[in-house]
Amino acid sequence: MNKNERLILVTNDDGVDAPGIKKLTEIAQHFGKVIVVCPDTGRSGQSHAVTMNVPLRRRLIHKDNELEIHISNGTPVDCVKLALHGLMDRKPDLLLSGINHGANSSVNVFYSGTMAAVLEGCMLQIPSLGFSTFENCYDFDMSILENDISNIIRKVIVNGLPERTCLNVNFPEHYDPSKGLKVCRMGHAFWKEEFEERLDSHNSPYYWLKGTFVPLEYGEDSDIWAIKHGYAAVVPVKPDITAHHTIEHIKNTIEL
Amino acid sequence: MNKNERLILVTNDDGVDAPGIKKLTEIAQHFGKVIVVCPDTGRSGQSHAVTMNVPLRRRLIHKDNELEIHISNGTPVDCVKLALHGLMDRKPDLLLSGINHGANSSVNVFYSGTMAAVLEGCMLQIPSLGFSTFENCYDFDMSILENDISNIIRKVIVNGLPERTCLNVNFPEHYDPSKGLKVCRMGHAFWKEEFEERLDSHNSPYYWLKGTFVPLEYGEDSDIWAIKHGYAAVVPVKPDITAHHTIEHIKNTIEL
Repeated sequence: MNKNERLILVTNDDGVDAPGIKKLTEIAQHFGKVIVVCPDTGRSGQSHAVTMNVPLRRRLIHKDNELEIHISNGTPVDCVKLALHGLMDRKPDLLLSGINHGANSSVNVFYSGTMAAVLEGCMLQIPSLGFSTFENCYDFDMSILENDISNIIRKVIVNGLPERTCLNVNFPEHYDPSKGLKVCRMGHAFWKEEFEERLDSHNSPYYWLKGTFVPLEYGEDSDIWAIKHGYAAVVPVKPDITAHHTIEHIKNTIEL
Repeated sequence: MNKNERLILVTNDDGVDAPGIKKLTEIAQHFGKVIVVCPDTGRSGQSHAVTMNVPLRRRLIHKDNELEIHISNGTPVDCVKLALHGLMDRKPDLLLSGINHGANSSVNVFYSGTMAAVLEGCMLQIPSLGFSTFENCYDFDMSILENDISNIIRKVIVNGLPERTCLNVNFPEHYDPSKGLKVCRMGHAFWKEEFEERLDSHNSPYYWLKGTFVPLEYGEDSDIWAIKHGYAAVVPVKPDITAHHTIEHIKNTIEL
């Protein structure tokens, strides 16, 4: 397939104005025709949520021969579903999500709208890749990630991905591209729940979520280790959370 | 540990008024002191979403020696986090979520707020169980599920669960308890995106999400098969989506 035939869907969870999706769109345009369908504003932490109680909107804000940009009031997963409803006459050849402003390694993958869009693409059998950086600041110059991201996309185009597998790519803070990529597994961690409790003007309490990421390990094959040591972490993920290794044990303790 | 010492957290995604959480609370009270922290109204399809842009509220609506009920404007995962913030002097001994009005088997687990609460509990190292029924109708008499749910809870209390593992239990429509449980894996499936497109009073289009569940297999060890054949499907799940079996392949195709 040559560049003119390739159809690429781009989305994110930070919304259309985020520098990350602009950079990813720019990179994607080297590989094919790009259709962006993304949230009209930030939808971080939306995970795999779908919108069922309010009507969804989708609005075209840019169109030329190489690029279309549509925005929606929905979640990232809604955006993927809306993109595949009526905008394209066939499945895209590639789905790219990001570049997310914030970490999506380890268990963050469960909270992430960026990675939920990738998993949704994967369920729909579209080769799907998510990119995130630990650099939260919108001033961060994403150009430094461009070469690595292009190389990953190129390799996926050439080699494909295993069945029911997508990629979660995270770049550490102060990433030095000479370090390069490390393919690894999700490290074990959790978010320690903490809330900032305040009183409103009627003296009723309200809470702002803030948490602390707590690694439970630093195994050398984990993304937690890779990020800590300055590597870009590439984790192959799949839309399956079965704890396969426990099935026999659960049979013996629950079923009988 | 005896019943008086056991602390059980109950939540759901259908909201405090759903018959499912009332039945689960009733069952849970046979096993210990119950603290319910759940959404004030339906939050289906919220997945692992956390609320970051609006302040969270939590309100006590019932308290006696055996039972406390708190409601929140947050998602099911917010509810778990809020429960662990200030309401309990220690981690609960058990987290129960549901009984969900609607299927959470196969890939539904990714969209489900009910199961996200269970996964959140699992990340926090609390033995966590989710219960759902394919019977969507609120008139459905959940008493028929009571015995099976009690037995599963009892077995988990006696035997524990493997590390980083929680349970996703789904009851089929027209469940006959003489069929019993089947421990299985998540079956492969996806939701075919379909939207109902309408025009508002200004002739602008809007979309209501509606989809069709498309099984990709009926493997005898899958929950899709178990449900189709009338069994209650018990799937051990874990907060890890690494595609472990692809790591070497991805190393060879992406890293080098």
